This record gives sequence, structure tokens and C-alpha cells, in this order.
Amino acid sequence: MKFKPLKDRVFVSYSEEAEKTQGGLYIPDAAKEKPQKGKVEGIGDEVKSLKVGEIVLFDKYSGSKITMEGTEYLILKEEDILGVLTA
Amino acid sequence: MKFKPLKDRVFVSYSEEAEKTQGGLYIPDAAKEKPQKGKVEGIGDEVKSLKVGEIVLFDKYSGSKITMEGTEYLILKEEDILGVLTA
Amino acid sequence: MKFKPLKDRVFVSYSEEAEKTQGGLYIPDAAKEKPQKGKVEGIGDEVKSLKVGEIVLFDKYSGSKITMEGTEYLILKEEDILGVLTA
Amino acid sequence: MKFKPLKDRVFVSYSEEAEKTQGGLYIPDAAKEKPQKGKVEGIGDEVKSLKVGEIVLFDKYSGSKITMEGTEYLILKEEDILGVLTA
Amino acid sequence: MKFKPLKDRVFVSYSEEAEKTQGGLYIPDAAKEKPQKGKVEGIGDEVKSLKVGEIVLFDKYSGSKITMEGTEYLILKEEDILGVLTA
Amino acid sequence: MKFKPLKDRVFVSYSEEAEKTQGGLYIPDAAKEKPQKGKVEGIGDEVKSLKVGEIVLFDKYSGSKITMEGTEYLILKEEDILGVLTA
Amino acid sequence: MKFKPLKDRVFVSYSEEAEKTQGGLYIPDAAKEKPQKGKVEGIGDEVKSLKVGEIVLFDKYSGSKITMEGTEYLILKEEDILGVLTA
Repeated sequence: MKFKPLKDRVFVSYSEEAEKTQGGLYIPDAAKEKPQKGKVEGIGDEVKSLKVGEIVLFDKYSGSKITMEGTEYLILKEEDILGVLTA
Repeated sequence: MKFKPLKDRVFVSYSEEAEKTQGGLYIPDAAKEKPQKGKVEGIGDEVKSLKVGEIVLFDKYSGSKITMEGTEYLILKEEDILGVLTA
Repeated sequence: MKFKPLKDRVFVSYSEEAEKTQGGLYIPDAAKEKPQKGKVEGIGDEVKSLKVGEIVLFDKYSGSKITMEGTEYLILKEEDILGVLTA
Repeated sequence: MKFKPLKDRVFVSYSEEAEKTQGGLYIPDAAKEKPQKGKVEGIGDEVKSLKVGEIVLFDKYSGSKITMEGTEYLILKEEDILGVLTA
Repeated sequence: MKFKPLKDRVFVSYSEEAEKTQGGLYIPDAAKEKPQKGKVEGIGDEVKSLKVGEIVLFDKYSGSKITMEGTEYLILKEEDILGVLTA
Repeated sequence: MKFKPLKDRVFVSYSEEAEKTQGGLYIPDAAKEKPQKGKVEGIGDEVKSLKVGEIVLFDKYSGSKITMEGTEYLILKEEDILGVLTA
Repeated sequence: MKFKPLKDRVFVSYSEEAEKTQGGLYIPDAAKEKPQKGKVEGIGDEVKSLKVGEIVLFDKYSGSKITMEGTEYLILKEEDILGVLTA
């Protein structure tokens, strides 16, 4: 079973391992419990600026949280995505 | 007697059995009393991104609740629908 | 004397007898005092999705209430109408 | 001296005698102190749905109140007018 | 030195003498301290519905108050002007 | 080092000496601490209604305050400018 | 690893050394802890009024703060940028 976001929605998984990358970008301590980083797992038909697989940053408290097989996911609006981390 | 949603409204029934699917997607415990998942029973003329019969996710507290023959229904706006679950 | 709603307004009477129909759709108990169902008695010139005589559902607390010859009426906006009940 | 409403404004006098008409439409008791009914005395250039002389209903608390020769007037926006009473 | 309002702004002086006119229109007692009537002294380039010299009504608490040679002026937006008093 | 406002921003210095001009326009006493008058020092590319060097009035509490070589400046939006003082 | 802002987002680093420039522009004392000045490190595709490397001013409390290799960054919207400091 899969989830297909509607319209301008973005489906994002939390990628815990991304939190200590070689590039050194990390979330500030105070925000550790509520990560702001994730991996795009699916996008709605109106989403033009993102691709599945990209690592994105987004504001804490954005989106709707759901859980699937023990992993936390967020469904965000494209406008809540701040940008993309590239290697 | 049937209900035809107006314009951008979506008529959704709660499908309790969908809550423990093979795919493992489920609503977090804290949200159990107010499910976020349902089946599209009818759509307004302006709804283009959904079809009757699809299983959808939506934010808790969205929409207007009505009851028909013991089943709970919600009347949501299309923009309150987060996405579609597909097999 | 008649009432002609302006623009996108809808003039609705409460049809109490509609509350126990053969189809079984009814308003939940907690909402009984403030019915959400009514009959369209008049529509403004901008209302395209409704006809006089249709039975409609609308959110509690929507609209402006007036009384005429002992019957309660509501003047709603078309966007407050959730949908139409059909036989 | 006369008052010419600007743009989408509607100039309305309270017509107390209209409150007990042959048709029986009246304002509910609780609203008696703040009538919701009036007569259009003037309209702004952008007002297309109303004519001077028409009896209109409007929401309590809408508009700006002024007094002229002992009569109370309201200056409303066209969108605050709910509809027209016709004979 | 003169003041030229920008865009949709209207520059208004309080005309106290206008408050007891032959036509009898006056501001209700409770509002006496904060007059709602004034004379248009200047208009911005986007103001199309008013001319300099016209007597206008406006909502109490609208606009920005300034003082010049002992006279109080208001700088309002055109949309805060309710209408024009004509002889 | 200079400051170039972006888009619809206006860069304004407080011109204290302008406060007691021959024309007599002045800010009311209560507002003396927070002058509402200034001189346009720079404008963004989208600002069409103002020129550098003009004396403008603006609402107290509008804009963002910065300090440069002991002078206070404000960065306002064009829409916060009420008008221009001309000789 | 790099960060690419999305759409109208601007990625800004705090340039502490910029705070005491030859031009003398500086942030007022009360705002010292939360600088309002930074250097553009990246821009989204919709940002037309800024270039990477420019020194910009922005309102305190604007944007989302992240930390990378000990430096604080902000992700702002283009509309939160007040202007550019030029030599």
C-alpha cells in the first residue's frame, strides 16, 4: 500500500541518519526532538520544484504527521518546504 | 436517499477496517478516536483530483460530521484531503 | 410579502419532517436543537449550484436567522451549503 | 442636504412600520432593539443589485450608524445586504 | 507648505461649522467628541470618487490624525469614506 | 556604504528641522517622541509615487528602524507612506 | 553538502564582521543579540531582486534559523529582505 499526495502536498519521511552528515549541516539542539529534515517520498501533481528522493528542510510544526511501519512521515504543502540539500 | 456534495465538497465515510491493512500504514495511537482515513462516497462538481471509492487521508478536525444509518460521514473540502492510499 | 436573497445568498426554511426520512440520514443527537438541514426557498442571482425546493445540508452556526409566520428561516451564503439530499 | 453613498455603500433608513406587515415577516424578539430591516435611501455607483425605495434585510451590527432629523440611518456595504422584501 | 496625499489617500479637515447645518444631518451625541464629518482638502492620484471641497462622512477611528496651524486633519484611505453630503 | 531598498521599500531619514517649518504643519505633541515625518533617501525599483529628497509623512510604528552614523532611519513599504509635503 | 533554497526563499549567513563597517551603518544596541544583517549564500529560482554575495538587511524574527558547521543561517522569504548594502 502506497500514499499518493494530492495537488500541492509533499510526502516526507524523517531520515534520522541524515542528521550527522559529512557536510556538517545539522539541526540546532533545541530542535532535536522535532527534526526539520526529511526525504521526499512522494509528491502531488502540482508540485514542480521537488523530486522524490531529495533531502529537504522544512519548518518545525509544519504539516500533518502519520506513522507507517514504525517510521514517522509528514504530509506537507510544497510552500512549507524551505529548500533542498544537495551533495 | 443520497447526498450529493456541492462544488468542492467531498463526502467521506470512515472505513474502520482500513485501519489495519497489510501495508502497515496506520493512524498514530493518540489519534485513534478521531480517524483521519476514509472512503470517498461522493464528490462535488468542482472536485477533479479524487474519485468515488478511493481511500483518502485528511486532517483530524477537518470537515462537518453527519451520521447516516449508524455510520459516521464527513463532508470535507477537497483542499482538506491530504492524499490517496493505493494498493 | 416575499424575500429575494441577494447575489450569493440562499434562503432556507427548516424542514423538521425531513429529519426522520426513509433513507435514514439524520442529524446527530447533540446537534438536534440546531438542525443542519433545510429546504431552499429562494436563491440570489449568483447562485448556480442550487434550485428552489432542494433539501440541503449546512453547517450549524452558518447564516442569519429570521422568523416568518412562526417558521424559522436562515439566509446563508452558497458556500455554506455542504450538499443536496436527493431521493 | 442629501447624502450620496460612495462606491459599494448603501444608505438605509429604519422603517419601523415595516415590522408588522401583512405578510407576517418579522424580526425575532431578541433582535427587536436592533432592527435588521430598512429602506434603501441611496446607493453608491458600484451598487448594482439594489434600487432606492426597496426594503432590505441586513445583519445586526453591520454598517455605520448616523442620525438625521431624529431618524436613524445606516451606511452599509452592499455585501452586508442579505436580500430584498417584495410585495 | 502643502500636503499631497499618496495613491488612494484622502486628506480631510474637520469642518466644525458643518455640524449644525440647515439640512439637519448631524453626528449622534455619543460621537460628538470624535467627529465623523470633514472637508476634502486633497486627494491622491488613485482617488476617483471624490473632489477637493466635498463634505464627506467617515468612520470614527479611521485614518491618521495630524495637526496644522491649530486645525486637525485626517489622512484616510478612499475606502474609509462612506459618502458625500450634497446641498 | 549605501543602502538600496528592495522592491516596494522606501528608505527614510528623520529630518528633525522639518518639524517647525514656515507652513506651520507639525506633528501633535503626543507624537513628538516618535516623529511621523522624514526625508526619502532611497527607493526600491517598484516605488513609482515617490522621489529621493521628498519630505513624507508616515504612520507612527510603521517600518523597520535602523541607525547609521547617529541618524535614525526607517525602511518602510510604499503603502505606509501617507503623502508628500510640498513647498 | 549544500543548501538550495526553494522558490522565493533566500539563504543568508550572518556576517558578524559587517557590523562595524567604514560606512558606519550599524544595528542599534538593543538589537545586537539578534542581528538584522547577513550575506546571501543562495537564492530560490523565483528570487529576482538579489544575488549571491550581497549584504542584506532583514527584520529581526524573520525566517527559519538553521546551524551549519558552527555558523548560523537563516532561510528567509524574498519579501522579508528590506534592501541591499552597497559599497
